[in-house]
Amino acid sequence: MTAVTNMALDGLVAASSVAVIGASDDPRRIGGRPVAYMRQRGFSGDILPVNPGRSTVQGLTAYESVEALPYAPDTAIVAVPAAHVPSVIDTLGKRRVRSAVVFSSGFAEVGPEGMRAQQDLLALAKSHGMRLLGPNTMGLYNERIGYYPTFSTSFESGWPLAGRIGIASQSGAFAAHIFTSARERRIGVPVCITTGNESDVTLGEAMQWLVQDPETDVIAVYAEGLRDAASFLAALEAAHAARKPVVLMKTGRSAVGSSAAQSHTSAIAGDDSVLNAVLAEYGVVRARSAEEFLDIAHLATRRIYPASNTLGVLSISGGAGVLISDTCEDLGLPLPEMPTSAQRQLKALIPFASVRNPVDCTAQVLNDLPVVGKFAEAIVGQGGYKSILNFFTQAGGTASVAPELLRQLSQVQERYPDRLFAMSVIGSSECTDRYEAAGITVFSDPTRAVVAIEAMGKFGDAFAKPLLKTGKAHGTSPALPRATLNEAEAKRWLTDAGVKCVLEEVAVDTESAVAAAERMGYPVVLKILSPDIAHKSEIGGVLLNIEDSDDVRAGVDLLIERAASFAPGAHIDGVLVARQVNDAMECIVGVHRDPLFGPVLMFGLGGILVEVMTDVVLHRCPVDYPTAVEMVRSIRGIPLLEGARGKPPRDIDALASTLVQLSSLAVAVGPNLQSIELNPVLVLARGEGAFAADALVVMNSTEGRNDKN
Amino acid sequence: MTAVTNMALDGLVAASSVAVIGASDDPRRIGGRPVAYMRQRGFSGDILPVNPGRSTVQGLTAYESVEALPYAPDTAIVAVPAAHVPSVIDTLGKRRVRSAVVFSSGFAEVGPEGMRAQQDLLALAKSHGMRLLGPNTMGLYNERIGYYPTFSTSFESGWPLAGRIGIASQSGAFAAHIFTSARERRIGVPVCITTGNESDVTLGEAMQWLVQDPETDVIAVYAEGLRDAASFLAALEAAHAARKPVVLMKTGRSAVGSSAAQSHTSAIAGDDSVLNAVLAEYGVVRARSAEEFLDIAHLATRRIYPASNTLGVLSISGGAGVLISDTCEDLGLPLPEMPTSAQRQLKALIPFASVRNPVDCTAQVLNDLPVVGKFAEAIVGQGGYKSILNFFTQAGGTASVAPELLRQLSQVQERYPDRLFAMSVIGSSECTDRYEAAGITVFSDPTRAVVAIEAMGKFGDAFAKPLLKTGKAHGTSPALPRATLNEAEAKRWLTDAGVKCVLEEVAVDTESAVAAAERMGYPVVLKILSPDIAHKSEIGGVLLNIEDSDDVRAGVDLLIERAASFAPGAHIDGVLVARQVNDAMECIVGVHRDPLFGPVLMFGLGGILVEVMTDVVLHRCPVDYPTAVEMVRSIRGIPLLEGARGKPPRDIDALASTLVQLSSLAVAVGPNLQSIELNPVLVLARGEGAFAADALVVMNSTEGRNDKN
Repeated sequence: MTAVTNMALDGLVAASSVAVIGASDDPRRIGGRPVAYMRQRGFSGDILPVNPGRSTVQGLTAYESVEALPYAPDTAIVAVPAAHVPSVIDTLGKRRVRSAVVFSSGFAEVGPEGMRAQQDLLALAKSHGMRLLGPNTMGLYNERIGYYPTFSTSFESGWPLAGRIGIASQSGAFAAHIFTSARERRIGVPVCITTGNESDVTLGEAMQWLVQDPETDVIAVYAEGLRDAASFLAALEAAHAARKPVVLMKTGRSAVGSSAAQSHTSAIAGDDSVLNAVLAEYGVVRARSAEEFLDIAHLATRRIYPASNTLGVLSISGGAGVLISDTCEDLGLPLPEMPTSAQRQLKALIPFASVRNPVDCTAQVLNDLPVVGKFAEAIVGQGGYKSILNFFTQAGGTASVAPELLRQLSQVQERYPDRLFAMSVIGSSECTDRYEAAGITVFSDPTRAVVAIEAMGKFGDAFAKPLLKTGKAHGTSPALPRATLNEAEAKRWLTDAGVKCVLEEVAVDTESAVAAAERMGYPVVLKILSPDIAHKSEIGGVLLNIEDSDDVRAGVDLLIERAASFAPGAHIDGVLVARQVNDAMECIVGVHRDPLFGPVLMFGLGGILVEVMTDVVLHRCPVDYPTAVEMVRSIRGIPLLEGARGKPPRDIDALASTLVQLSSLAVAVGPNLQSIELNPVLVLARGEGAFAADALVVMNSTEGRNDKN
Repeated sequence: MTAVTNMALDGLVAASSVAVIGASDDPRRIGGRPVAYMRQRGFSGDILPVNPGRSTVQGLTAYESVEALPYAPDTAIVAVPAAHVPSVIDTLGKRRVRSAVVFSSGFAEVGPEGMRAQQDLLALAKSHGMRLLGPNTMGLYNERIGYYPTFSTSFESGWPLAGRIGIASQSGAFAAHIFTSARERRIGVPVCITTGNESDVTLGEAMQWLVQDPETDVIAVYAEGLRDAASFLAALEAAHAARKPVVLMKTGRSAVGSSAAQSHTSAIAGDDSVLNAVLAEYGVVRARSAEEFLDIAHLATRRIYPASNTLGVLSISGGAGVLISDTCEDLGLPLPEMPTSAQRQLKALIPFASVRNPVDCTAQVLNDLPVVGKFAEAIVGQGGYKSILNFFTQAGGTASVAPELLRQLSQVQERYPDRLFAMSVIGSSECTDRYEAAGITVFSDPTRAVVAIEAMGKFGDAFAKPLLKTGKAHGTSPALPRATLNEAEAKRWLTDAGVKCVLEEVAVDTESAVAAAERMGYPVVLKILSPDIAHKSEIGGVLLNIEDSDDVRAGVDLLIERAASFAPGAHIDGVLVARQVNDAMECIVGVHRDPLFGPVLMFGLGGILVEVMTDVVLHRCPVDYPTAVEMVRSIRGIPLLEGARGKPPRDIDALASTLVQLSSLAVAVGPNLQSIELNPVLVLARGEGAFAADALVVMNSTEGRNDKN
């Protein structure tokens, strides 16, 4: 797919000829702007305006129809009312034009009727082997070739600057906000593709084009709702392989769908958390604001992505150093201490300096700037930090200080070209441009600098690690269970698949329950066994601390009675007799099928930590063992598993194996599986194992569906 | 104190004559800059340079000594080496100069010797009735009168603009970063006071001066470490009374001191959390970055502080609307839906608009701007939102759109002058200045706009509510306990003070324990009773589920045995027999003495929620009943008290009473109390009460100290 797509998108994104259907002589109209922009920017290819009423458009020869075009251009801009779009596309297709940018609105965004019109339009385009950007797209631009198939008004106030950032965006208005902000900040964004309704070309395909573009280093993505996971994941995989960082803004933390009802797992893992888990796999950094988005993309153009990032700080203000430390602590960016020998050396230069890190060289250095060079050399060379943030605020922007300060810092920067240099300084654009030209990225606000530096480390960590192969099971593929399993069947099935469960037996009458309990040894647990009762404990269907045979008999009667009164229609398969495991830590392990990303594994500590504090971690299935351990260790409540509050450390190895097995099973079973929830998994002391004490398997009601994993 | 202080500070901050000791003819030297700045800004008062070697300084008559001054100016700038400062201050004092700004460094910031020199200097100044700003201060400026007793280099690149924000800062460098950033953003900060080492004039006093200044509306405070709580709290109280918002940056989230060892309460409540609790009392907003600090201060100059804030959003981009919603959700700023009738009306204007809120009027309005006016009128008038954010990004900054858009929006703004209008727009400074002049505050980034708008609501909520009177007990004052109380004594003492505890008796031998248990009814709890064993459960010193007299006898033996082996030196007072309370929710309620702010009350849910998740809330003592209820309701785990997971709702009323009583007691006892921890407090079902089941009272080891509460 990739190769064909890219070829087709080349015609769209880097066309050498473009027709403009609905071209206007008025450079302020939607059909006029692309022509005006491309003429102003000296588009190197042909512009072929189509307008039945005019012989020229903005000084160019106009054609009265698509049929009248002298040849088939690479692409066509379609700027006609929605009703006329199908016939235009059909004619373009017949002329063998391979792609079109459809500005026209009035399709899926206006309701069901428009959606149908859009589907028809897509079918028509496909029948001609034609790719569509849009409809309802603001289009795209590629400043490198002066190519502007877009009606954005942003270019009234200036043109994009040269640079290495490319934008792929579902929203035109928001993309314009970003690239206009970039221009105001003198950040180069020479390519931007907005996908509009995405009838055909997806956000992921636009991202893929940027990844394979040799002139783009950083992919900046704005999404509102992902429609196609396959192309999005393919783009992320390609970006990872090419070491091109992806920074993403995704708005809308959507509520949980209706599938939530049947299991905690799906209720707790909202769509947005699943997306975050997927982004974490690929090292995509998610920006929280438009400014942060650009900060990160801009710093990323240095192409320095330090794995296991550390920060050294050189500041003329102790307070700013502390502020920077606070932000580092919030983000988990380490600020290791300077080596003792280097500290001594710096103290000798300025006795009242703070030299641990952050290093406060005090404003005194402003009278003796070569000292700054010595401080910077010590921090970078002896401190060995992967990233360096210099805080010189307005002093670093003054005419009396800036030139020599720059000279001192850039000498150090030249000696250590693999380090990431950033600077918090306030000065004229001429002044900050000079720092930037010397390889030192400028932020006026030190907090924003830290956020961006931390993101570079995330990119580096991701690039340093091979991607986990997801989507394929690495265990055996068990038989697909029937739609509804009772607890005993579920656990038998899970045990066969390698998921360890608590020892238990099914009893179909009172005396076999007693016999089972006697075999097992007291105390035991009794549970009602019915495929129709999902949450047994809510109807009192679980009895603990059953100590002898009389207890068993009374317990079985009580369970049958409760089932009869609280779930009168339920089919009762019998009673489950299970060994009672005491002194275990309760966890929840589950998988649920995300509609976009397939089966997702969830882990959390049992009880209130999951239900009230939502202390859970997610990952796409399957996970390998190191990933499973990492998941377990990443929850906030991890001290409880490591032996907090006077309890023994727990068997995290066994717990991780449960995660691995369950995730592999979920992939093997395929799309008919809606969710599996092991709640609780009882985790014993180190070396003693982890066992599912309850299991709920939910299959999709529409069995035999054929969607891909 | 207040009146005298302000008079003294008037001479410092708004002097009508100033001597410059160590004045330099070179306008770039520390002793030259103040003279140069004041001359350039046309300081209206007298500048009296003192320099023994010159007859003129920068064109002004110079005096060879302080003695030679023609009269005693309001204040003096001291720019001489540290060693000469004492004699200068002494001479100034003898001349009856009432205040001085001491630039000189080499005092407390350089170590113990400097600290002693600083204390001597302060004593000297006090002996003359003289106030000192500094030493080691960058000074201050008051642009309104052209008064610049400061050596900041920031003014090389421009002067502060007129406006209503005043800064009080402990750091000179960071203040310069802020006021320079403000100037770059065209935000007026005409007054700034930096306190340096704060030997005398404190941050709180500087704040108080700004509060009483009729030309300052917004107090922006930068702190690194609060040294004096009294003047800080007095300033916050005055600001609240004057309805002047305070925005604060405080760096350094300090680790917990050594007092943490003895009780959970102090370990969990770090200094920074105590400060946050104090700030919340007064409605002070704490900014997380320098930019946010200015964003909030700038928006606050509109003097519109909407209590129970709500936000209406008008956007030309659906995506930006969703981004804004996401931020509102993070911050808890409500975005109520538009009334149905208004929605219908807007749909009639633009059928494809989203009209619920955020309102997306689509970019179509850019061709018909009067429609924007109609949308804005509907949102403000019918929607009734207290704050309105308009997202028009670069389109709102273009020459073709901006003038008419401004006209439309400002017409609405004029009809609703009590509403807070903000705008996300990218344009030239001329363009954004026009929006600002019309009363619509401009942010380029919509996320930052939301953060600032939310802060205005916090100010409004605080101003709408009278301050809680803290620092005075409102109960009876119990007798001060002796330094160490055993558990039984502690609970008796607490019970006398109105704190409800679980029913219990002290038994000094086995048979009286049996008798007590029989009187009380089984099951009971047995606990070892010793003032020397703080954490009984760690040595197995608590036995639950004691069911009969044999159990009591065996239990007492076991406790004595454990105490002997695990705490051999401990004095054993006997055994505590307590009624066992089942099915209770465990909470922790504690007070600990903060060195700066006195006794602080802590509340959290028992067990892992406090210890692992740090889900706690703090408030200075004493609290009243509504505040106590608010505290309880503010923890993340509140669903557990309200009846989550099939459990009954708990007696929050009784729990709140426990908070009130304990907080009042802590104030009544005074500074000899280090901490009281009730852990657990057992909270029963609604109407059934809350009872402390264990209590630990820690007094200060240095009894009889005399510090104030």
